[in-house]
Amino acid sequence: MAPIALSSSKEENRISLSEYVFRRIASLGVHSVFGVPGDFNLEFLDFIYNVPELKWYGTCNELNGAYAADGYSKRSGKLGVLVTTMGVGELSAMNGISGSYAEYVPILSIVGTTPTTAKMQGLPSHHLITQMNPLEKNDHYVYQKMAASISCNVTSIDDPFEAPDMIDNLIRDILKEKKPGYLYIPCNLASVPVSDLNLRTTSGKCFFEKELCCDQVMVQNLAAKILDLIYMSHKPFVLSDCLVDRLRISHEIQEFVDKAKLPNSCTQMGKSTLNEQSSYYIGDYSGDETSIKTMNYVSSCDLMIHMGNFDNETNSGHFSIHKEFDDKKSGKTLIILNHKYIKIGSELFYGYSILDVLPEMLRMLDTSKLPQVPAPCIQNIIPAHKSSTPISETDVLKGIQTLLKPNDTLIVDTGSILYGISDIRLPKGCKVLTQPFYLSIGMGLPCSFGASVANRELGNKGRIILVEGDGAAQMTIQEFSNFNREGLNPLILLLNNEGYTVERAIKGPTRGYNDIRPNWKWTQLFDTFGMNDYKCQRVDTPDELSKTLKEFGSDNSCSRMIEIGLAKLDVPWRINGMVSHKK
Amino acid sequence: MAPIALSSSKEENRISLSEYVFRRIASLGVHSVFGVPGDFNLEFLDFIYNVPELKWYGTCNELNGAYAADGYSKRSGKLGVLVTTMGVGELSAMNGISGSYAEYVPILSIVGTTPTTAKMQGLPSHHLITQMNPLEKNDHYVYQKMAASISCNVTSIDDPFEAPDMIDNLIRDILKEKKPGYLYIPCNLASVPVSDLNLRTTSGKCFFEKELCCDQVMVQNLAAKILDLIYMSHKPFVLSDCLVDRLRISHEIQEFVDKAKLPNSCTQMGKSTLNEQSSYYIGDYSGDETSIKTMNYVSSCDLMIHMGNFDNETNSGHFSIHKEFDDKKSGKTLIILNHKYIKIGSELFYGYSILDVLPEMLRMLDTSKLPQVPAPCIQNIIPAHKSSTPISETDVLKGIQTLLKPNDTLIVDTGSILYGISDIRLPKGCKVLTQPFYLSIGMGLPCSFGASVANRELGNKGRIILVEGDGAAQMTIQEFSNFNREGLNPLILLLNNEGYTVERAIKGPTRGYNDIRPNWKWTQLFDTFGMNDYKCQRVDTPDELSKTLKEFGSDNSCSRMIEIGLAKLDVPWRINGMVSHKK
Repeated sequence: MAPIALSSSKEENRISLSEYVFRRIASLGVHSVFGVPGDFNLEFLDFIYNVPELKWYGTCNELNGAYAADGYSKRSGKLGVLVTTMGVGELSAMNGISGSYAEYVPILSIVGTTPTTAKMQGLPSHHLITQMNPLEKNDHYVYQKMAASISCNVTSIDDPFEAPDMIDNLIRDILKEKKPGYLYIPCNLASVPVSDLNLRTTSGKCFFEKELCCDQVMVQNLAAKILDLIYMSHKPFVLSDCLVDRLRISHEIQEFVDKAKLPNSCTQMGKSTLNEQSSYYIGDYSGDETSIKTMNYVSSCDLMIHMGNFDNETNSGHFSIHKEFDDKKSGKTLIILNHKYIKIGSELFYGYSILDVLPEMLRMLDTSKLPQVPAPCIQNIIPAHKSSTPISETDVLKGIQTLLKPNDTLIVDTGSILYGISDIRLPKGCKVLTQPFYLSIGMGLPCSFGASVANRELGNKGRIILVEGDGAAQMTIQEFSNFNREGLNPLILLLNNEGYTVERAIKGPTRGYNDIRPNWKWTQLFDTFGMNDYKCQRVDTPDELSKTLKEFGSDNSCSRMIEIGLAKLDVPWRINGMVSHKK
Repeated sequence: MAPIALSSSKEENRISLSEYVFRRIASLGVHSVFGVPGDFNLEFLDFIYNVPELKWYGTCNELNGAYAADGYSKRSGKLGVLVTTMGVGELSAMNGISGSYAEYVPILSIVGTTPTTAKMQGLPSHHLITQMNPLEKNDHYVYQKMAASISCNVTSIDDPFEAPDMIDNLIRDILKEKKPGYLYIPCNLASVPVSDLNLRTTSGKCFFEKELCCDQVMVQNLAAKILDLIYMSHKPFVLSDCLVDRLRISHEIQEFVDKAKLPNSCTQMGKSTLNEQSSYYIGDYSGDETSIKTMNYVSSCDLMIHMGNFDNETNSGHFSIHKEFDDKKSGKTLIILNHKYIKIGSELFYGYSILDVLPEMLRMLDTSKLPQVPAPCIQNIIPAHKSSTPISETDVLKGIQTLLKPNDTLIVDTGSILYGISDIRLPKGCKVLTQPFYLSIGMGLPCSFGASVANRELGNKGRIILVEGDGAAQMTIQEFSNFNREGLNPLILLLNNEGYTVERAIKGPTRGYNDIRPNWKWTQLFDTFGMNDYKCQRVDTPDELSKTLKEFGSDNSCSRMIEIGLAKLDVPWRINGMVSHKK
């Protein structure tokens, strides 16, 4: 569906505040809204039916809704939208929103609140905590203050006159910062008329246009400086990271490495931003936690161009990712292109963005000056790790490698298997959705629901494949039933290792606190949750696994689950690096 | 199990900080700890095995853990304890903690955090959001600041030397305020030795002793003044409210109304604090939302003594509860005994507590001076409300009335049926657990798990009966499987009305946003979640309902679920009052 057409008339009409919000969302190309109804948002929600471009996706609870909006945004690159009710709803969703904040996912979190009079007078209201002194007035803004810590902008509507501009500013901030923002709408203002002028004068497209950097000379100097360093290097390589995905510039990075024939790699959080089938793709790179061939190759390079970096503990092999490149004595050079700054060697240029500099680099690139680097042609390997059961997590990783086809979406929940995903070489157009930094367990299932919605919206024919452990699955299991209602057909690999294996690897391998609720009949879940058409199979040998992956992988007409029996302490090799940093 | 015996020696030993926490918890008579393991709390959790008085109850996710700790505390009157990990865990639990805060439930929320060095240096860490400026140091206290809004005390341990006193002060605040408090323990301090001296010198009992009010003369004057007003009245009545339960003084209130032969009643939040089988019990009172006979009786009274009041919208019949009693012209008198203040007519005495004044009233009571009020002997009725299905919510309420036996615990989730519970007359010793003010949907199932644990701990032979709607059940359904693991056998009445009926009553009766995931096979859930021994039955007629309630009610040897088919729009009569205030 196309964004709403702009009227040539600049005269304003009056529409309800809620319709304004929904039409603004639709103008951005968003067609899906997630959440849970509650008494303070019902007035608002009702207006979604005035905007036929939008569809409501109710989730079983608010945390699942937040995870789903996150998955929708990560998969589509669009704004994710969540609607909850004051207190009970918004607080339930907070961990999901915090995860989006941590991992640069733009979410508009809309909360229906108490009416303006109750807010002004501080009346006691259900869903709202009271003061320690029961005679004091109540603070209806208490939750908004909490939300401010995990969002880039909290917009609380008290005056409908200013609402359209405030809402547009909020969305601009969210899309610019790639962080969640909150919109609080009192229930009595939901249907109050506001001007629709902004909708007529500002198209959705405008929200994605970056303001030109005011110092274009400096931007060109920076691009030239970076290109010169590449020209002068013997063996440069490009590392694509998280923000390349969030800034939606993976196409430009790919164009750059293709034109320049530069060896390239992705970090854990940058996974699936580049074409891993290229002979110039050297495998994923995570500093000390990289597979040996890739590590050796990187060690032989003299220039690292780190694009869209997100330097954090888990994404950087515990801060080993820049190693020699960040060390003057090594004679190597590190260039970082962030959305907030550019860093060339030890020189920091704060306030300049990859969004300014990269297009100039592309424009100015002179391929004749480039060092001739032969295609590395590094084959991927999935290092084996022993298991006490017939199937090991290595077998699962190999199975996923064989299973994947172009344009598939692979969602991996937080858990031990996550640490093996970097060993998989993705077919072209595959997308990986994980949460390797914030690491909330249980995000996978609702995230894959949101991603499925996005996938359908995008018209992408690739499959949705979810890999999650049993402990993670127990956290958010009810969301299985939403696939059914919406006619979405994921393929789910359920790793049954009877507990929190990733925690067992850190501490308490035999402790009861790492056990989960036992004896779930996993393959019965689809039936219990009301699905008519599905396939389920438990597998306990590598042969069964291969056979079932082949069979289930080729039938996308229904939801499918493969329950994979694994050992309690079986993990991928890379987890040892993570664990050693905990000791 | 008895609290840990105090050693006569006042010499200190060194025990780990974590063991100190667990031994202090055990010294309060608490034997159950709820939560979810995570990498930052594993070091801490491991010490629970050093304190055999404590048992760990892992829940499927953190929100469920918070609800369970709330249910444990509400059922037992003890401190509820929740353990989560920084960020992902604590934020998931926040709505549960906020509910405990809103409804005066004392919870110790323990969060394992990043190590002290990382906190001091502001290092980026997984589970921790980063700053908007990626070059700034990170704030490891960001979540603690959010928690401060929904707790009475946030104690963050940075220095183990001060830890024992800080922990004890925190627990003192929680138990005094009846509000949650947070304890943040960095993972590197979990096993650091601290002095155990406090454990030897301060018994758990000391934490429950209220400091004597410094102005005992004033306390006696207040008690005398209140008694005089009762003596002078013609028809006084006592209204018992929420804080009577939380302050654990229902026994004293009962003693007072029994000795003085005073007509008495409970609010919605005070439900089950008094003996409803007494001929002096006049039925539940909620102002304008009271059944007619009780309302008429209250109207005929000239003095209301409101004990442990919690004046909020939902608990006060939308602020109609004090009506004429708060109006000078009426010639009637209102006395309020709160834990923070006493109010006699229009005179406010802030800083004086029911905990000081009530014992004096009991001591000074001269029954010869009391007005002779005949026992009201008001029979309870459950007003019928029509339904389009054979079974109505009225039938369910009548079924619950017949089902209940002394010492049962009735847990009712947030939903339409909640508004009918005031029409049920409880057998002696019955306990009702609901959340009528904070009104979080989905709290019921995990709350009933916590209550079941408390019930067993207390040696209470009464049954755990959970009533919840299908929409609420979908929110937290995984927690069913915990009953199985722990050998607890609830009786569950699952109201299947295909959606959020309480929301439909407010807005959007036929709107899709009030639909839930359809076609769940509710009676198959126990089997799917791994239970071997259980009973399940769907009923669609009043006869089937009565028969199954009788059969399932008398067999407590296994978990039981009755799925009750109801109409989408069938609600108890009282909900109309609630809805009219929304319009």
